Amino acid sequence: MIFDVAWTADQVDKAAVEGSAAVVIDALRATTTIAACFAAGAKEVWPVTGVEEARDLARRLGPDTLLAGERGSLPPEGFHLGNSPLEATPERVGGRRIVLTTTNGTRAIHACAGAQALVTAAYVNAGAVVQWLTQAPRARVYVACAGTQGSFSLDDALCAGLILSRLRAALGESEPIEESDAAVAAQALYAQFGGSVRQAIGACAHGRNLTKMGMTSDLDFAADVDRLSVVAERSPDQPNTIVKGALP
Amino acid sequence: MIFDVAWTADQVDKAAVEGSAAVVIDALRATTTIAACFAAGAKEVWPVTGVEEARDLARRLGPDTLLAGERGSLPPEGFHLGNSPLEATPERVGGRRIVLTTTNGTRAIHACAGAQALVTAAYVNAGAVVQWLTQAPRARVYVACAGTQGSFSLDDALCAGLILSRLRAALGESEPIEESDAAVAAQALYAQFGGSVRQAIGACAHGRNLTKMGMTSDLDFAADVDRLSVVAERSPDQPNTIVKGALP
Repeated sequence: MIFDVAWTADQVDKAAVEGSAAVVIDALRATTTIAACFAAGAKEVWPVTGVEEARDLARRLGPDTLLAGERGSLPPEGFHLGNSPLEATPERVGGRRIVLTTTNGTRAIHACAGAQALVTAAYVNAGAVVQWLTQAPRARVYVACAGTQGSFSLDDALCAGLILSRLRAALGESEPIEESDAAVAAQALYAQFGGSVRQAIGACAHGRNLTKMGMTSDLDFAADVDRLSVVAERSPDQPNTIVKGALP
Repeated sequence: MIFDVAWTADQVDKAAVEGSAAVVIDALRATTTIAACFAAGAKEVWPVTGVEEARDLARRLGPDTLLAGERGSLPPEGFHLGNSPLEATPERVGGRRIVLTTTNGTRAIHACAGAQALVTAAYVNAGAVVQWLTQAPRARVYVACAGTQGSFSLDDALCAGLILSRLRAALGESEPIEESDAAVAAQALYAQFGGSVRQAIGACAHGRNLTKMGMTSDLDFAADVDRLSVVAERSPDQPNTIVKGALP
C-alpha cells in the first residue's frame, strides 16, 4: 500500500488521487463538523466551494435543506448554521440535508473528486476512518489536508499522522508500505505532538485564531480523539454528496 | 522576528517574501553544490530556470563561463558540470562564473526574487547561514524549501529545521519569535531526525533515487553539517547573481 499526503487543497496531485482512497482532513473545523452532523442523524452533506453556489443548491434541494458553513470563521448571511460541531444536535440536523461551504475543507474535498473512494476525517472519528480503510484492499491511501488559506496547517498534519500511524499498526507486518516524504513527516509530527492533541491544535495558527474568537469549545470538541464512531463517505450513487458510511 | 517556511518552490508566498530575508534550500543538491562552488573559489553563480536560457546566458557571459546543472539528476547535453558538489574543485570552478539550472533549486531561488536579501543554504553551510542571519536586524526569515517536483521533500524540511533551531538558539530569550505552523513543524522534524542527517536524507524519496543512480558520495557530502564556512548571497548590485557573502 502507498501512503501519500498533501498539505493543502492546492497541493493535491490529481493524478495520484485517481485510483486512491482519499481521506480529506480539515480538523478545524469542517470535517469535525461533518462527523458531528452524521453522529446527530443528518441525512446528507453536500460540500460546495462557493457561498452563492451553496445558496443556489439549497434552493434547488428544497425547503428542508440547511445552509451551513463559514467565511472568516463566521456563518455567511442567511445561513442556518455556522461551521461548529456544537451546533450539530439531533434537534437541528437530525434527518436533514445540509449544504456546506467552508474556506478550506470543501475545496479539499473537491480537489479529490477523482478518487476511487473518499471519506472525510478528523480526530473525532479517526478510529472509524482507519477501520473503513482496512475494510477493502487499497492500492494507495491519499490523505488530503485542507490547510489554512493555502498554507500548511499543523492541526491537519497531525491528524493525518494519527490516521496513518494507526493504519500502519492495523495492517501489521504482512502488508508492504511505501511512503512519501510527507507521509513520513506526518507520522513523525504526530509522534512528537500527539501526546496532547488539544494543546497542539490550540497552539497552532488556526487554533490561536479560533481561541481569539472565543471558540475554545469547538477546539475541545475537535481534539476529542475517537469521540464519534461514524464515517462520512462520498456516496457511490451521488458523487457530490457525503453520506454516513457503513462500518462492520 | 517572524519565522516562516514554504515546503516547495510553488508554495512560496510572494507577498510574505517581500521584506524578508529569504533562505533557499535545495540540499539535494543545488544549494549544496552552490556552497561547494564558492568554497572552491568560484566567482559567481547565475541561477536560471530553463536549459535553453542557461545556454543563451552562458554564451552572452563569455567563453570562461561554465554551464552546470541537471535534468533527471544528470547534466544536460553540452554542460561542463552536473549538479554534484564533488565536481566543484578549485581546478574546475576556481575564479569561474557558473550558470546553473536545476529542476527544483533554481526555481525556488527565482520564486524569492522579491526578498530584501537572499542566501542559498544547505547542511554543509548551515552554521555560516545562521551567522549571516544574525548579522543584521531581520523582521522576517522566510525559508523556501525547493521540494522535489512540486512535492514536500524531507531532506529540505530537515535542513530548514536545523537552521531555524540554531537561529532561535542564537537569538536567545531577548528576541520575541512568531512562527508559522510550517516553521514549528520543520524544527520538530529536525529534532526527531537530525541525530543522523546522513541516514535521514538517504531514506527520503530523493535520497533513495540518488542512491539508486550511484550518487552516494554526493549524499555523504550533502549530509556533512558545517563542512563549509561560506555564505552564498544574492549580489546587491546584480540581482540575478549569487556571490560569496561576507562573514565577520
